[in-house]
Amino acid sequence: MRTIAIDAMGGEHAPEAIVKAVLQVKPELPQTRMVLFGDQNKLTELIPADQLDDRLAIVGTSEVILDEDEPVKAIRKKKDASMVVAANYVKAGKADALFSLGNTGALLASGIFIIGRIKGVSRPGLMPTLPTADGTGFNMIDVGANATSKPEFLVQWAEMANYYANSIRGIAKPRIALLNNGAESDKGDPLHQEVYQLLQESSLNFIGNIEGNELLEGKADVVVSDGFTGNAALKSIEGASGVILQLLKNSLLNNGIKAKLGALLAKDALSSLKKQFDTARYGGAVLLGIAAPVVKTHGRSTERPIYYTIKQVDKMLEEDLIEKFRSEFSK
Amino acid sequence: MRTIAIDAMGGEHAPEAIVKAVLQVKPELPQTRMVLFGDQNKLTELIPADQLDDRLAIVGTSEVILDEDEPVKAIRKKKDASMVVAANYVKAGKADALFSLGNTGALLASGIFIIGRIKGVSRPGLMPTLPTADGTGFNMIDVGANATSKPEFLVQWAEMANYYANSIRGIAKPRIALLNNGAESDKGDPLHQEVYQLLQESSLNFIGNIEGNELLEGKADVVVSDGFTGNAALKSIEGASGVILQLLKNSLLNNGIKAKLGALLAKDALSSLKKQFDTARYGGAVLLGIAAPVVKTHGRSTERPIYYTIKQVDKMLEEDLIEKFRSEFSK
Repeated sequence: MRTIAIDAMGGEHAPEAIVKAVLQVKPELPQTRMVLFGDQNKLTELIPADQLDDRLAIVGTSEVILDEDEPVKAIRKKKDASMVVAANYVKAGKADALFSLGNTGALLASGIFIIGRIKGVSRPGLMPTLPTADGTGFNMIDVGANATSKPEFLVQWAEMANYYANSIRGIAKPRIALLNNGAESDKGDPLHQEVYQLLQESSLNFIGNIEGNELLEGKADVVVSDGFTGNAALKSIEGASGVILQLLKNSLLNNGIKAKLGALLAKDALSSLKKQFDTARYGGAVLLGIAAPVVKTHGRSTERPIYYTIKQVDKMLEEDLIEKFRSEFSK
Repeated sequence: MRTIAIDAMGGEHAPEAIVKAVLQVKPELPQTRMVLFGDQNKLTELIPADQLDDRLAIVGTSEVILDEDEPVKAIRKKKDASMVVAANYVKAGKADALFSLGNTGALLASGIFIIGRIKGVSRPGLMPTLPTADGTGFNMIDVGANATSKPEFLVQWAEMANYYANSIRGIAKPRIALLNNGAESDKGDPLHQEVYQLLQESSLNFIGNIEGNELLEGKADVVVSDGFTGNAALKSIEGASGVILQLLKNSLLNNGIKAKLGALLAKDALSSLKKQFDTARYGGAVLLGIAAPVVKTHGRSTERPIYYTIKQVDKMLEEDLIEKFRSEFSK
């Protein structure tokens, strides 16, 4: 039986939404044990006693890492934080994967400093699955685990993401692209020019450079990027989407009765748009390169995205992704 | 009298849209002479003979730089291209500013290699004005003139953009922010950490780091960025906006009669949204640091954005921005 360690105290809707998602997903994952780390009293109150069995357990913890905490300091000082205790369970082999909605930096630090890297991986990379216009989505790595990047980091990220897209998302020959400032092979700074060459020479299905404006068009299954640029691109997409949808809502609500009636009639169409851009189904962002699956979802996630993320983590364990990385990078 | 050299052959709607915009703006700029560079026959046909006077002239050219042309090669080989001849007019002092809708790389190369840098400016930076949710807009520099950047480049870009925001956009004390991967002062790679310190120590109204997701929120009047990241952020915003508006259109048109009727009723509201995000009023992207205003608008621009861009170029001449840069950077 595989075990997922779940930080039940991270995110805006903790621990309620997390517990709900766990109870919902539990019957669907008969091979999986989930351990919730957090406030013993609250969790005991939220979870029906008959649900606590060999597949669901609580580990009481007394501290919580907050979003405003400095990540590395927090995991060192808050020894009894839900996230830290959960990470130590994974390190000790008492759990196989770590999932949290909490402080991203602290989760990265927990992965890197507590659980540790896979031997042979230079630097772990953070990889979300992002939506595309055609609804298939794509993986982007790294979106901010690293402020500075070297060519070999990007090549390893491409290799790990390729495995992920293949075994978790079921894409036969994932199309790998490099986020760059133009289409031609000589574009970019020396880092990106060198990565282009290395990817070209690799056995990956490298399709060349991709630019920011093409990201959501579904041209690539995996986009590899230095962590600094990937972070800016991801956040720019989030910001632009958020602002446009907010302005859309405002303009429909504040332009008189005709617009309001129109919005009412178009409601189903608008929510179909929202669904198309809804990233819940894609699960969370994975910190690839750590000796266990370490997965993070947005702090504001509700039950549904949490449910999908647990399934995603479980799938990573089922496919034994980490073992694949180990044998690949120990060469 | 000031003179603007206009490449009449660049962009999808050239030369018609350019001529229309020129004829529309001409009565509003009595102090300004415009010279159109392009196909003599076509331009003569499009411009009423009585409009050709001491404030509007045509210079016939026989070549055009295409979007697919390699920029530096193109400006060297196509000696009689409209863009190149226009740039040479500026270099020779026969015109004071260069405006084009053509190949961005070739325009940057024309600015840098034909017209030349202002003495004391290390590297020119490309600076568009982008929309914000509150409708005021902000300037971002550099968005791709430089694949690699040094700390002093970013500080000079911040200084030039500060002047621009002040004298052209009329902002008393422009709020300057640094595009980075987090809010705290120690965020980012060594380049961004150093720029943060330099901006902190400068006399600019530096408000700290800004992240990609905050760009369109109107928190800063000027966002300074290394050229590689700025390029990715700008294109990511463009891509996300484009995809969302396209999906919105599709979902309103392909979800039956109810959605269509709703869209019809909400039409005014939706076009008010479009207007709010319409960058036409903001004019084109300026290549700051060149010895004359060099301005570019999107190749797909129609008459309206071209009209506003000519006014923007004229304002830069009226305010004698280049002279301000000269005296600042010659120190």
